[in-house]
Amino acid sequence: MHFASDNSGPVPQQILDALARANQGYAMGYGADTEMAGVTARIREIFEAPEAAVYLVATGTAANVLALSTLSQPWQTVFCTLPAHILQDECNGPEFYTGGAKLTPVTDAGKMTPDDLRTAIEGEESRGVHGPQRGPVSLSQVTEQGTVYSLAELEALGTVARDYGLPVHMDGARFANALVSLDCTPAEMTWKAGVDAVSFGGTKNGCIGVEAVILFDPALAQQFEYRRKRGAHLFSKHRYLSAQMLAYLSDDLWLDNARAANTKAALLAEGLCAAGARLSHPVQANMIFAALPRGTHRRLFEAGAAYHLWDGGLEGSDEELVTARFVCDWSLPDSQVQALLSLL
Amino acid sequence: MHFASDNSGPVPQQILDALARANQGYAMGYGADTEMAGVTARIREIFEAPEAAVYLVATGTAANVLALSTLSQPWQTVFCTLPAHILQDECNGPEFYTGGAKLTPVTDAGKMTPDDLRTAIEGEESRGVHGPQRGPVSLSQVTEQGTVYSLAELEALGTVARDYGLPVHMDGARFANALVSLDCTPAEMTWKAGVDAVSFGGTKNGCIGVEAVILFDPALAQQFEYRRKRGAHLFSKHRYLSAQMLAYLSDDLWLDNARAANTKAALLAEGLCAAGARLSHPVQANMIFAALPRGTHRRLFEAGAAYHLWDGGLEGSDEELVTARFVCDWSLPDSQVQALLSLL
Amino acid sequence: MHFASDNSGPVPQQILDALARANQGYAMGYGADTEMAGVTARIREIFEAPEAAVYLVATGTAANVLALSTLSQPWQTVFCTLPAHILQDECNGPEFYTGGAKLTPVTDAGKMTPDDLRTAIEGEESRGVHGPQRGPVSLSQVTEQGTVYSLAELEALGTVARDYGLPVHMDGARFANALVSLDCTPAEMTWKAGVDAVSFGGTKNGCIGVEAVILFDPALAQQFEYRRKRGAHLFSKHRYLSAQMLAYLSDDLWLDNARAANTKAALLAEGLCAAGARLSHPVQANMIFAALPRGTHRRLFEAGAAYHLWDGGLEGSDEELVTARFVCDWSLPDSQVQALLSLL
Amino acid sequence: MHFASDNSGPVPQQILDALARANQGYAMGYGADTEMAGVTARIREIFEAPEAAVYLVATGTAANVLALSTLSQPWQTVFCTLPAHILQDECNGPEFYTGGAKLTPVTDAGKMTPDDLRTAIEGEESRGVHGPQRGPVSLSQVTEQGTVYSLAELEALGTVARDYGLPVHMDGARFANALVSLDCTPAEMTWKAGVDAVSFGGTKNGCIGVEAVILFDPALAQQFEYRRKRGAHLFSKHRYLSAQMLAYLSDDLWLDNARAANTKAALLAEGLCAAGARLSHPVQANMIFAALPRGTHRRLFEAGAAYHLWDGGLEGSDEELVTARFVCDWSLPDSQVQALLSLL
Repeated sequence: MHFASDNSGPVPQQILDALARANQGYAMGYGADTEMAGVTARIREIFEAPEAAVYLVATGTAANVLALSTLSQPWQTVFCTLPAHILQDECNGPEFYTGGAKLTPVTDAGKMTPDDLRTAIEGEESRGVHGPQRGPVSLSQVTEQGTVYSLAELEALGTVARDYGLPVHMDGARFANALVSLDCTPAEMTWKAGVDAVSFGGTKNGCIGVEAVILFDPALAQQFEYRRKRGAHLFSKHRYLSAQMLAYLSDDLWLDNARAANTKAALLAEGLCAAGARLSHPVQANMIFAALPRGTHRRLFEAGAAYHLWDGGLEGSDEELVTARFVCDWSLPDSQVQALLSLL
Repeated sequence: MHFASDNSGPVPQQILDALARANQGYAMGYGADTEMAGVTARIREIFEAPEAAVYLVATGTAANVLALSTLSQPWQTVFCTLPAHILQDECNGPEFYTGGAKLTPVTDAGKMTPDDLRTAIEGEESRGVHGPQRGPVSLSQVTEQGTVYSLAELEALGTVARDYGLPVHMDGARFANALVSLDCTPAEMTWKAGVDAVSFGGTKNGCIGVEAVILFDPALAQQFEYRRKRGAHLFSKHRYLSAQMLAYLSDDLWLDNARAANTKAALLAEGLCAAGARLSHPVQANMIFAALPRGTHRRLFEAGAAYHLWDGGLEGSDEELVTARFVCDWSLPDSQVQALLSLL
Repeated sequence: MHFASDNSGPVPQQILDALARANQGYAMGYGADTEMAGVTARIREIFEAPEAAVYLVATGTAANVLALSTLSQPWQTVFCTLPAHILQDECNGPEFYTGGAKLTPVTDAGKMTPDDLRTAIEGEESRGVHGPQRGPVSLSQVTEQGTVYSLAELEALGTVARDYGLPVHMDGARFANALVSLDCTPAEMTWKAGVDAVSFGGTKNGCIGVEAVILFDPALAQQFEYRRKRGAHLFSKHRYLSAQMLAYLSDDLWLDNARAANTKAALLAEGLCAAGARLSHPVQANMIFAALPRGTHRRLFEAGAAYHLWDGGLEGSDEELVTARFVCDWSLPDSQVQALLSLL
Repeated sequence: MHFASDNSGPVPQQILDALARANQGYAMGYGADTEMAGVTARIREIFEAPEAAVYLVATGTAANVLALSTLSQPWQTVFCTLPAHILQDECNGPEFYTGGAKLTPVTDAGKMTPDDLRTAIEGEESRGVHGPQRGPVSLSQVTEQGTVYSLAELEALGTVARDYGLPVHMDGARFANALVSLDCTPAEMTWKAGVDAVSFGGTKNGCIGVEAVILFDPALAQQFEYRRKRGAHLFSKHRYLSAQMLAYLSDDLWLDNARAANTKAALLAEGLCAAGARLSHPVQANMIFAALPRGTHRRLFEAGAAYHLWDGGLEGSDEELVTARFVCDWSLPDSQVQALLSLL
């Protein structure tokens, strides 16, 4: 019963097979491998973006901080939400890579609204050279609360950003989960809605460790390469990154994995609600935040369930509600969901 | 005939097998995997350093820049050689990670002598707060010219560093190649000679992408963890790094690979000399720098040999000597060495 | 009628005279001037801190960012208030100098409470290496809203910081204004209450441009010197900084100036209230935030009054209340206060 | 007998008078003072550059590091000489402000030649994304060895830079001394020769502490303002910087001071040579590097002469030659030169 994270499960056999296939003979390093040419072509095709620059790195934080630093200046602030991964979970990596830019939370919620964004942007207006300057907008899709921006919401946010001439970054650590949730095209969810750069996640959805950074403006490509190299994120044996990503994007593996994860989460959410749990946020992808009595959590943990409590802990009365995060990954069998539910 | 780099060959089956073995069930992320416990234990055993802190990252540059930043302050300078990888080939990564420290080349040669080092350290003495302050010494073992510091040389350099209270870093991207060349213990080549931190390479010697940073002073561990995370080098699915390193250190794979590479290089060097080439530096590991007439290079390239010219290019007279770098990796078959030599 | 800022008035003759006195013959540069020895001795005496390290810089932002970087690590966050100068008005200078540390606002108010602080510190606890780590607490005394922490408040905040082992910085851009407001000793307002480092302002209270950084732990002195130099804040002709500070601290000039400014502010606040203005915050030093009908602001501006509107602008109905900031500097004559009040 | 530095003498009365004049009534802060408008107009006139952006800071290092960071990217290297102030005497300030750029010395000499520069630029060509990228060229005029680039030399260096599309920075800490030495116009010595940004020194030539940064491309102005602010180099009471610079540029004070200093240096050099000293470099401005027997230095120091030994110290045989640096500032009376010479 593993619901702790979508980075704790195994990878599908296709990924291992792809590594084995790539492991033949000699290959040029540093991204000049033939697999990478395939990755670039495939991503341009999927995103309907024939000019996009595409790069691979091994961690989601690397994708985010490199993308953000490419879109910003050190004297600017990045507009994001308070729960954003870049603000909460990257140990000041964005500040490090941008050379000291700030992050301004425009809302405490998981999703920002156009009004939130506009108000925050306006708030950085009046102090001239003294305050931080307006910088990129960063949107997490899926959000850190398991919700998904609709296309209309994305477009509205993109419009606000464009009104102020600010670029938009999408933290797509769970890009595929959002995509299948919306049932739209990658282009619709990104550049057609005003997104300039995407952290396109592979790791949480079945890869060993690979994320693409997609820059729709190829003029940013050159500086990205320098930023990646000096950040120590350029792989010499790059073919093993490329091979993962190519397999991930082949035969709909990425979409199938995401659908599997989302489906399990829907099943689990339904069961939790049926058992009386209160959902903190709508369940729109593969993460569930739900409040259960502390006594229930105790029982689940004792039975071997693995997941994180989000507020409160195990100390206290049995009756008090404690919120937990359940994450379903691609590999989770139905039987584990049922096993958890049967304990309720 | 692939002599371009030791990062262009395949990895041994043991590494792929280890990934497959690690790909079972659920595992805690971020280094809390059970394989990592094995890695730490094994490295402590190999290095006879029961207290050492051990961390994994995926690139050699990451290992170097994280180790150096842990040993230095932004107002210091790192003493290294002019050809050092950290100076030439990391696109200002050390300056980035250290927050702006300098690199001072103490010699144009591949190896620094104790006199070189002492003179350079003394040279940073007289300007008080105005000049950069003295910082760590960084030694590449194998050096970027394919030579190997003897234990006596390392100890003499360690003594100079200790005289000034400066820590010593070893860039061991080709650590195993040096070790089998010296036929000594890892402890002798590191902490017994005064080395405080090691970038212990796996990638160039048969891994997909994994390097260990070994800190003999465990008091440095905590800050290293923060530096690795904010540098975006902490892997969520860390078990796949651990598995590689564990396989690498099992059944003498690391030593066998290094011996194979060094042996091929010795064979190739002998053949090159027999054919009239002039070696630029003693061949002590798996790299050869040799001068051949330009016409010979043209002939070899046309026949499909892959390696880098180091000075001069293909334009010019046939007779002029042009230096090339030949690198032998673990996987290179004897037949390829013979094929190259037969062309001479 | 100049109430825009306490950096827009002239300096007292004593400061100019001190520059003229210092302008005799030759003097060692970079802080080795004899005046600086006097400054250090005087500040140690005033603060009852015979071991304190004392440095001069020319801007308040320099004092803040150098002090904060000395107390923090790049992976930490600085706990401050939302209106804090370091957060709002230093254009990411703290992020730059600290190498990428964050600033966490613990409250939207001008003053933080011990509860605010404790809650914020606890909030940075649960994410291990992923979140920013806990760093220094920075308190503005006078606050950016013109209020002054009482000694009891300072001590309570210092106790919270000490509970977590966190150092405390005081942004004392208006240190003297706070001191005379509290009628306490500098020691009571700083190290006795748990403050580790002070930005001790001179510029806003009558100097041309000089601030002292006082480090009560002399072990921090060495690194501060390197930080100041590489930040380009070490003056070659340092005697002219020293001379200002020495004159400022002589014959109670600093205290007299602060009392004059505070007295004018009290007078103005009383008059504003009598005229129906609503104070946003208690007036405890030399700054007033007060709401007046927009029509009144229009009238005052037309009559030549200089001050800043804090929220809202001149567009809109006459009746709506708009908040303004009035700052009184040492040099402000009573007649200007009366002139403003007579317009109401 | 003060020859230690041109930052250890007093300032002329005109500078103090200007401060007193500026000390009237209220003035807008942060560069919006009326004096600054005069400074900008005057510098544009002097440099025949009606569009140039002009900013003031208080230290020469601030001028250099802010100018260099405006012209470079963190992944580039700055081409300079080995004795350059930015390399030797700014405690890694350039690395800090540029976000980690490197400095590449193109020669050990005080002056670089076009060949030196071209060779160094070519040397940063072959390693693609791995090496540092080519960045700005920084020229010190006067050089750190007391020599002055001729207009022809500057133009030739500017041509090399332009061939590679690299911007040129001039460290003009002793700009006026060079200008009167060449007897040319400021335009000829800067933008007409290909210089893009100038650190225009005031401090070493009679000001208390003020330097202008002149950017001939006004498109760089906006980012410079942000860099200056976040570097904590924007003065609130800016009028006192402006007043110094305006007085400095009035009534030929800057030129008169420089001529006085250069004249004394010529006199001293002549006398030193007559007494048997060997000049290390041609004396073209206000600095002299000369070798004298150690015994002579001992005698001079005992008699109260103040200057720096450049290599070697006071320990050793009387006969051995030891090189010293003598700097003449604007205020040095002839009598002091004579006093020194009379001791020889």
